[in-house]
Amino acid sequence: MNSSTPHSIKDTVGNNTANNVLYAQAGGVSAVINASAAAVIETVLGHSDRFGKMYAALNGIKGVLEERLIDLSDISKDTLDAIKYQPGAVFNACRFDLDPLDHNPAQYERVLEVFKTYDIGYFFYNGGNGSMVTAQKVADYCCANGHPVQCVGIAKTIDNDLAISHCSPGFGSAAKYIATSFLEATLDTISMHDTSTKFFIMETMGRNAGWLALSAGLIKDVIPDVPLIILPSERPFNQQAFMQKAEQFIAEKGYCVCAVSEGLQNENGDYLTIANIEHTHERDYTQLGGVGHAIARIVNDQYDIKTHCAIPDYLQRSASHLVSKTDWQMAYDAGKAAVEAAINGHHGVLPIIKVTSTEPLQWTFENVNLEEVANLEKTVPDEFITEDGMDLTPAALEYLRPLIQGERSAPFKNGLPNIPVIQFDCVAQQLPTYHAIK
Amino acid sequence: MNSSTPHSIKDTVGNNTANNVLYAQAGGVSAVINASAAAVIETVLGHSDRFGKMYAALNGIKGVLEERLIDLSDISKDTLDAIKYQPGAVFNACRFDLDPLDHNPAQYERVLEVFKTYDIGYFFYNGGNGSMVTAQKVADYCCANGHPVQCVGIAKTIDNDLAISHCSPGFGSAAKYIATSFLEATLDTISMHDTSTKFFIMETMGRNAGWLALSAGLIKDVIPDVPLIILPSERPFNQQAFMQKAEQFIAEKGYCVCAVSEGLQNENGDYLTIANIEHTHERDYTQLGGVGHAIARIVNDQYDIKTHCAIPDYLQRSASHLVSKTDWQMAYDAGKAAVEAAINGHHGVLPIIKVTSTEPLQWTFENVNLEEVANLEKTVPDEFITEDGMDLTPAALEYLRPLIQGERSAPFKNGLPNIPVIQFDCVAQQLPTYHAIK
Repeated sequence: MNSSTPHSIKDTVGNNTANNVLYAQAGGVSAVINASAAAVIETVLGHSDRFGKMYAALNGIKGVLEERLIDLSDISKDTLDAIKYQPGAVFNACRFDLDPLDHNPAQYERVLEVFKTYDIGYFFYNGGNGSMVTAQKVADYCCANGHPVQCVGIAKTIDNDLAISHCSPGFGSAAKYIATSFLEATLDTISMHDTSTKFFIMETMGRNAGWLALSAGLIKDVIPDVPLIILPSERPFNQQAFMQKAEQFIAEKGYCVCAVSEGLQNENGDYLTIANIEHTHERDYTQLGGVGHAIARIVNDQYDIKTHCAIPDYLQRSASHLVSKTDWQMAYDAGKAAVEAAINGHHGVLPIIKVTSTEPLQWTFENVNLEEVANLEKTVPDEFITEDGMDLTPAALEYLRPLIQGERSAPFKNGLPNIPVIQFDCVAQQLPTYHAIK
Repeated sequence: MNSSTPHSIKDTVGNNTANNVLYAQAGGVSAVINASAAAVIETVLGHSDRFGKMYAALNGIKGVLEERLIDLSDISKDTLDAIKYQPGAVFNACRFDLDPLDHNPAQYERVLEVFKTYDIGYFFYNGGNGSMVTAQKVADYCCANGHPVQCVGIAKTIDNDLAISHCSPGFGSAAKYIATSFLEATLDTISMHDTSTKFFIMETMGRNAGWLALSAGLIKDVIPDVPLIILPSERPFNQQAFMQKAEQFIAEKGYCVCAVSEGLQNENGDYLTIANIEHTHERDYTQLGGVGHAIARIVNDQYDIKTHCAIPDYLQRSASHLVSKTDWQMAYDAGKAAVEAAINGHHGVLPIIKVTSTEPLQWTFENVNLEEVANLEKTVPDEFITEDGMDLTPAALEYLRPLIQGERSAPFKNGLPNIPVIQFDCVAQQLPTYHAIK
């Protein structure tokens, strides 16, 4: 599938001599990103012939700039096991990217200085596409300036919008959470609709890709004839067609349940949010959230029926009590594959998932150049959305179903998940203080 | 604790001779209400010397009026087991009450007619206080008109606002769901706040009682120093004091997490919702939902920081994959206690929970007259809320903690909870058709 041969460190700069390892996390988290972290650490520590010290940066590349590094070389087995069950990013993730090299060469010089100081020869970046390309550019800069560093990406996103790869680690667990929650709320709605709520809507994450809204459709495996409307962000919202479908369901079945992507737009390309809960942020994009309430209001106004709206928000990406065992394993394997790619001499690559068997799901990893996937976004393909744009197809169910298989027992203590904050001490700084954000 | 002796059927009308049983569900559901249903059925079927046929009505008292009855006398063990894991109300619940007797005597005559036709001598009503008093009035009416019926209530509410009782079945599971979800989202926030969301808010159910918002505070058992603000509906929202506390937390810890009751009001007694997502419904009350977004907006506007808001809505009352084993057992015991109350000759009573030991939590049931609890609403007491009105006290934690103890493994199939809709056939109608809602 990859059109060009993956980079090897020899293609780029010759062999690296530094053998310490740095791992960092970036971008929105998932319930299983720390399984990837644990896999990197375990695999690196298992190859003491190849690798030296094992470091993680706090807050991704920002922590690299600020020399906030943790030495994990002597991490205990108990801590490693605890990491695998932890939601969020155990080493903290950042929404921070380096500037382009020509705009801010000082940033790159600083990273080089940190890498030299800690003798970093391997850099594993667990983040979004954009972040990983930045990481690669950093590594390229190091290579070009006499300090060879191998950079390998590790994918993670609940949005499932990573191109070329069969899916993204993190998506299966979010999909399982969405489908489970939606199923339970649908049974609630079924049991009350006669004299109460007749329209229930759940808003899922996914700005441009409707994968998570689509996942709600997995409840068809449990309630085949459920009166369900799915509104993925790939299709503009047609209010008239939507209202017709909802009305027909309510007339026939007494109720209707709906899952909508937060990024749904109307036919003019405007986000469908309640106007005054729209805000612009420092990054100059519109913060979403509210499309569920907006649609509930439309239904309520037009039909005078009771509606309810759930917005799980961060709950869907942090539900470590309900991960997909398949996804958890995939996230672990992704971390391991990244270290193996480095051992095999690759640089600037991302191990992506190739499925080798569907029942049961089996997969392998293939290294593609980071630049190949960086600017691609995998939205839901046409064959997964029905003609009317408001339901998923049997092909979509076939794709989604294997990704949510398996439950992993989570540790509970005193009635709650046993997931205390894991504290790591940073190593004493050796370089002058640097503020990544001035 | 109850000031008057519970009613017995002899006090009221002499012994009942009809021995068939009717069970029905009313009001908002919980994740464990069906454990109470299963307990009623199992206990009744285990006393064949005392009871005749076992019926359930579909849609509560509305189904009684409409003669939509299910004969459960031969229910299979598999179905009974399945009921115990089912969210929602397996026999469908109604938001429908009878009119006062003098306004609509025809309704009462109709119920009497149905009870006579099916030889109903026992009526178990699993619902809110108001519904249960209606049920008792129906039974009183039957008694006064020559057809003695014993009526016993079974409590259920996630809101925990039932007076006199230690707690309400249904609350412990919702509290466990809220605390677990809030814990996971807090770890997410901790891991990202350095460059992303610094204020996360979760809106819980609870119109007048802040018990569920308070439950979020259980995360202190896992993260003792968490910068947490709780806004229970018992305290008016003081924007200035709130902002001061949030600002201080963000300055000290870098982030702040908040749980708020949907029913939070400002100091003028107005609900704190985003104005244009407020609607009035047929029942002439304001549908809540939106206070979380309203507060997130206040924080966002004032500090220009990124905020996020989760509104679990129905998810918190239907999460059968994450029930409290303690609560599940309590719900089962409540159903059993109701049948035992009837066997002991009680009428017009509600078995309420008396705690006999706290470690481990043990309880028994005491029958109180339905009228004693009907118009009381147990809000959070002062000693459970800190002086500033924005946190819970150690006493509150001591009260809440035992209620969320224990996990119950839920059946999964093909990646999702194995909870298909259970279909029951109604018995053939013997009476003229009756429309409860004209």
